[in-house]
Amino acid sequence: MSVLARLVAHPVTERAVLALVVVNAVTLGLETSPSVMARWGGPLHLLDQFILAVFVVEIAARLAVRRLAFFRDPWSVFDFTIVAISLLPATGPLQVLRALRVLRVFRLITLAPSLKRVVGALVGALPGMGSIVLLLLLVLYVFAVMATHLYGVDMPDKFGTLGISLYTLFQLVTLDGWSGEIVKPAMETHPYAWVFFITFILVSSFTVFNLFIGVVVNAMQAEHDLEMSEKTGRPPVSLDDLMQELKRLRAEVQELRGATPAAGGTGPARL
Amino acid sequence: MSVLARLVAHPVTERAVLALVVVNAVTLGLETSPSVMARWGGPLHLLDQFILAVFVVEIAARLAVRRLAFFRDPWSVFDFTIVAISLLPATGPLQVLRALRVLRVFRLITLAPSLKRVVGALVGALPGMGSIVLLLLLVLYVFAVMATHLYGVDMPDKFGTLGISLYTLFQLVTLDGWSGEIVKPAMETHPYAWVFFITFILVSSFTVFNLFIGVVVNAMQAEHDLEMSEKTGRPPVSLDDLMQELKRLRAEVQELRGATPAAGGTGPARL
Amino acid sequence: MSVLARLVAHPVTERAVLALVVVNAVTLGLETSPSVMARWGGPLHLLDQFILAVFVVEIAARLAVRRLAFFRDPWSVFDFTIVAISLLPATGPLQVLRALRVLRVFRLITLAPSLKRVVGALVGALPGMGSIVLLLLLVLYVFAVMATHLYGVDMPDKFGTLGISLYTLFQLVTLDGWSGEIVKPAMETHPYAWVFFITFILVSSFTVFNLFIGVVVNAMQAEHDLEMSEKTGRPPVSLDDLMQELKRLRAEVQELRGATPAAGGTGPARL
Amino acid sequence: MSVLARLVAHPVTERAVLALVVVNAVTLGLETSPSVMARWGGPLHLLDQFILAVFVVEIAARLAVRRLAFFRDPWSVFDFTIVAISLLPATGPLQVLRALRVLRVFRLITLAPSLKRVVGALVGALPGMGSIVLLLLLVLYVFAVMATHLYGVDMPDKFGTLGISLYTLFQLVTLDGWSGEIVKPAMETHPYAWVFFITFILVSSFTVFNLFIGVVVNAMQAEHDLEMSEKTGRPPVSLDDLMQELKRLRAEVQELRGATPAAGGTGPARL
Repeated sequence: MSVLARLVAHPVTERAVLALVVVNAVTLGLETSPSVMARWGGPLHLLDQFILAVFVVEIAARLAVRRLAFFRDPWSVFDFTIVAISLLPATGPLQVLRALRVLRVFRLITLAPSLKRVVGALVGALPGMGSIVLLLLLVLYVFAVMATHLYGVDMPDKFGTLGISLYTLFQLVTLDGWSGEIVKPAMETHPYAWVFFITFILVSSFTVFNLFIGVVVNAMQAEHDLEMSEKTGRPPVSLDDLMQELKRLRAEVQELRGATPAAGGTGPARL
Repeated sequence: MSVLARLVAHPVTERAVLALVVVNAVTLGLETSPSVMARWGGPLHLLDQFILAVFVVEIAARLAVRRLAFFRDPWSVFDFTIVAISLLPATGPLQVLRALRVLRVFRLITLAPSLKRVVGALVGALPGMGSIVLLLLLVLYVFAVMATHLYGVDMPDKFGTLGISLYTLFQLVTLDGWSGEIVKPAMETHPYAWVFFITFILVSSFTVFNLFIGVVVNAMQAEHDLEMSEKTGRPPVSLDDLMQELKRLRAEVQELRGATPAAGGTGPARL
Repeated sequence: MSVLARLVAHPVTERAVLALVVVNAVTLGLETSPSVMARWGGPLHLLDQFILAVFVVEIAARLAVRRLAFFRDPWSVFDFTIVAISLLPATGPLQVLRALRVLRVFRLITLAPSLKRVVGALVGALPGMGSIVLLLLLVLYVFAVMATHLYGVDMPDKFGTLGISLYTLFQLVTLDGWSGEIVKPAMETHPYAWVFFITFILVSSFTVFNLFIGVVVNAMQAEHDLEMSEKTGRPPVSLDDLMQELKRLRAEVQELRGATPAAGGTGPARL
Repeated sequence: MSVLARLVAHPVTERAVLALVVVNAVTLGLETSPSVMARWGGPLHLLDQFILAVFVVEIAARLAVRRLAFFRDPWSVFDFTIVAISLLPATGPLQVLRALRVLRVFRLITLAPSLKRVVGALVGALPGMGSIVLLLLLVLYVFAVMATHLYGVDMPDKFGTLGISLYTLFQLVTLDGWSGEIVKPAMETHPYAWVFFITFILVSSFTVFNLFIGVVVNAMQAEHDLEMSEKTGRPPVSLDDLMQELKRLRAEVQELRGATPAAGGTGPARL
C-alpha cells in the first residue's frame, strides 16, 4: 500500500474531512443571511473556497489510489459528483448551480457509517420494489393521458398538457386540496368527473401505500438481519432453515432406531 | 399443439407484442399534444390503427386456440376487454370512449411477469379483506343517510342528496379540507355537528387504515411465501409446522427410550 | 329449550331478519329523496313501521328467552339500543333522533359472522391500546389548556374556550390546513407560536400513528391466530413454546444418554 | 431505610399524589373559563397553590432520600423540571411560563405504570432511529439552504431566511396545501420549481414514513418482548436461539450414535 493510499484511508484524514463537512454546513447556512454576508462575506467565501480545495484534493487522491475501482463504488461516485457540481462555472443560465453547492453537506452520509447504512438500506430496498414503482408510473401515465383528453379543453391550467396533467395527478395522490381545487371545478363541466378521479385516488393511494410499506419493511428487515449477523456472527435464520435442521435431526434419530429414513426426511410417523 | 397455439405462445410473439404496447404508449402520449398532432397526426393515427389491428389479431388467435378456457383466465378477459373498448364506436355521447383507448397500455401488466405478480398479489389480497370493505361501505352509507337528513336542508351543495353526501363523506375520509370546507360551515347552523363529523372521521379513518394495512401486509406475505417457495422448492413453513415436526421427533425419541408416547404427543415431561 | 328459544335461534329466522335489515337499508336510503317520498312516501313509511315492528318482536323474544343473560352479551345490547332509539318519540328538540333510525342498518354487523369478527377484533384490540388512548387524551388536554391561555385572547374563534381549543388541536392532528388556517395567523401576534404548534404536531401525530398501527396489528394478529386455530384445531404456537418443547426433547435425549439434565433444561453443552 | 424513605415510597403517598394530579388537571382546566374564574377564582387559586406546595414537598422529600441518585432517574428529573417551571416567577417577558404550569398534569405519566411503559417504549425506540432523525434533519437543512438561495428573493414570505424556509419545508413534509400555497406560486417565477419541490416531497415523506414505522415497530416489539418475559419469566426467544438449541441437541444425538459432531455442530448430513 503506497503512502498516499495509507494517508487517504487514515482515520485522522476521515475525521478531518468529516469536521470540514460540518464546518462547511455551518458556513453555507450563514451565507443565506444577507446581514452576515455584508459583514463576513469575504472570510466566509475564502473558507468556503479552502474547504472545496481540500475536498478536490481528497477526491483526487482517492481517485489516484483506486483508479477505475473508484467509479465502481457508488458512494465514491456520489462524493465525486457532489464535489464536481461545485466546480462548474455558475454564471449566466447555470446560476442555479450555485444553490446546488450545498449538496456537499450530503457528504456526511458517506462519512458517517450509521447514516450510510440507513441510506444504503433504503436505496437497496428500492430495486425489490421496482415492479410497484413501474406500476405506479404506468397508472400515473395512463390516467394523465386520459385526463388530458377528457378535461384538457375545459381546464387548461390543470390538464392542458400531459405534463400539467401529471403534476395535477401527483397532487391528487397526495390528497392535497383534491376536492376543492380539482374535482369540484371539473364536475362543473363534467358532472361524472368524480368517477374518474375517485377511481384514480383509490388506485394510486393504494399503490403508493403499498410501495412505502414495502420499501420500509424490506429496509428494516435487511437492517435487522445485518445487525443480528454482526451480533451473533452467524447468517440470519429463517423458519425454513429451522425445519431443515429439524428434519436432519430426525433422520439421525431414525438411523439410531435402526429405521432407514423415508424419502425427503419426513419420516413415516405423520400425526 | 397446433401451429397457431405454438405461434401465440412463442417468446418472440410475446416480446413483439410487449414492444408494440410500449410504442403505443408513446404514440398515445404524443397524441395529447396539439402541435405534434398538427404535424404528425396522420402517421401517428395510422401507426395507432396498425397496432390495434395486431392486438385484435393476437387476441383472436389466443381465443381461437384456448376457446372457452380463454374466458376462465382473468388476465385474458382483462386483455380482451381493453382491446374491445378501443373497437367501440367513439362518436356522439360515447365520445368519452376515445379517452379510454389509452387503457391499452395496461396490457404491460399482463405482459411483464413481475407486474402481473404484484397486481395479482394486491387483487388477490382484496377478497380476504371483503369484510372490511363491506364494513366501510356500510359505515359510509349509514352516515350518508344520516347526514342527508341532518344537514341536507341547510347545506344542499354538501349534503343535498344521498349521492352528494357520499361524495362529501369520502372527502372527510381523506381529511382534505374537512374543517374549513365542511365541518365549520355545518357548525354555523348546527352547533353540535362536530360530534357527528368527528365520530365519522375516527370510525372511517380507522377502518380505511385497517383495510390498507391488511391488504398490503397480506399481499406482501403472499408474495414473500411465493418467492421463498420458488427459491427453496418447498412450501412455506409456519411455527405450527415446526411444532408438529418437533412433536413427531419427540415421539420417536420416546419410542427409543421404550416409553409409549402420551396422547397428543406432548409427553409426560412438562417442565 | 322452549319453542320460542328454538324459533329465535332458527337459521330461517336469522336469515329473514338479515333480509329485512337489507330491505330496510334500501328503504331508509330512498327516504332521503324528496321526489321518491312525494310518490311513495306512504308505502315506504308503512314498510318501515312493519320492519321496525318485526325487530321489536324479535328483540323482545330474545329478551324473553335469555332474560338477564341477554344484557351480558354486548352484541345483544347493541341490537337492543339501536332498535330502542327508533322507538323514542322524535319530536321537538329530539327531532335529531329521527336521523338516528338509520343506525338500524348496523344490525348487519351482528347478523353477518364475518363482519362481527372484524368489528370484534378491532374493538377487542382497543383495550390493549388503552394507555395510548389515555396518553393521547392527556396530550390533547394539556396542550388545549396551554393554547387557551396563550392564544385565547388574540384568536377567540380558534382558542377562545377549552372546547374550541380541543377542536382546533384535533384539526392540527389531522394536518388539515394547519399552516394557513391556524399557525400562520397565530404567528402574526405570537412570532414564536410555531414552537408550540410544531411540538404539538410532532408529539400528537406520533402518538396517533402508534395507536393506529398498534390496534390494527393487534387486531390482525388476533384474527390470524383465530383463523389458524380454527384450521389446525390447535392453539397458536409462539417461539417460546417451540423453545420449551425443544428443551423438553433435549432433556429426554440426555436421559437417554444417562446424563442427568442440568437445571433449566439447557444442558452443559452450550456452544 | 429511613422513615422519610418509607413515607415517600408508600403506596398511599403515591395514590394521594396521583389523586392530586387528577384534581389539579380539573382545576387547571376550569381556570381557562373566565366565567368560572369570576365566581370561583379565589378558591381555585388557593387549591392550586396548595397542590403545588404538596408537589414541592414530595419532590424535596424524594430528593432528600435519594440525593444524587434522584437526578440519574430520567423520570425524577422530568417531575422535578415540571414542578420547577411552576415555581418560576411568571411576570413580564416570562408571562408565558404561566401557561406552562399545566405541564404538571403530565406527572400522570410518571405515576401510572402503564403510561410510563408506553412513553418509555416510544422514547426508548428513538435512539435506535437516531440515524434516520439525523438524515431527516440533514435533508431539511440542505433543501432549506437551497430554497433560500433559489426562491428567497422572489418569495420572501415563504423562503426569505433559512428559518422561514425550514418552516415552509416542514409544511411541505406534512403535504398541507403544498400545491396551492407553495409550489404553484413558486412556479410563476421559476417554471421548473416543481422539480425541486417534488424531489423534496418524495425524499422527505419517504424518510418520515420510515422513521414513524421504525419507531412504532421497535416500540411495539420492545413492549411485546417485555410482556412475554413478564408472563413466562424467560427472556424473549429469537429464531437464532432456536437454531442454536437445535444444533446443541443434534450434537448430543450424534454423540449418542458414537459419531463425533462436525465443526460448527452442523453435522455431515446436510440435505
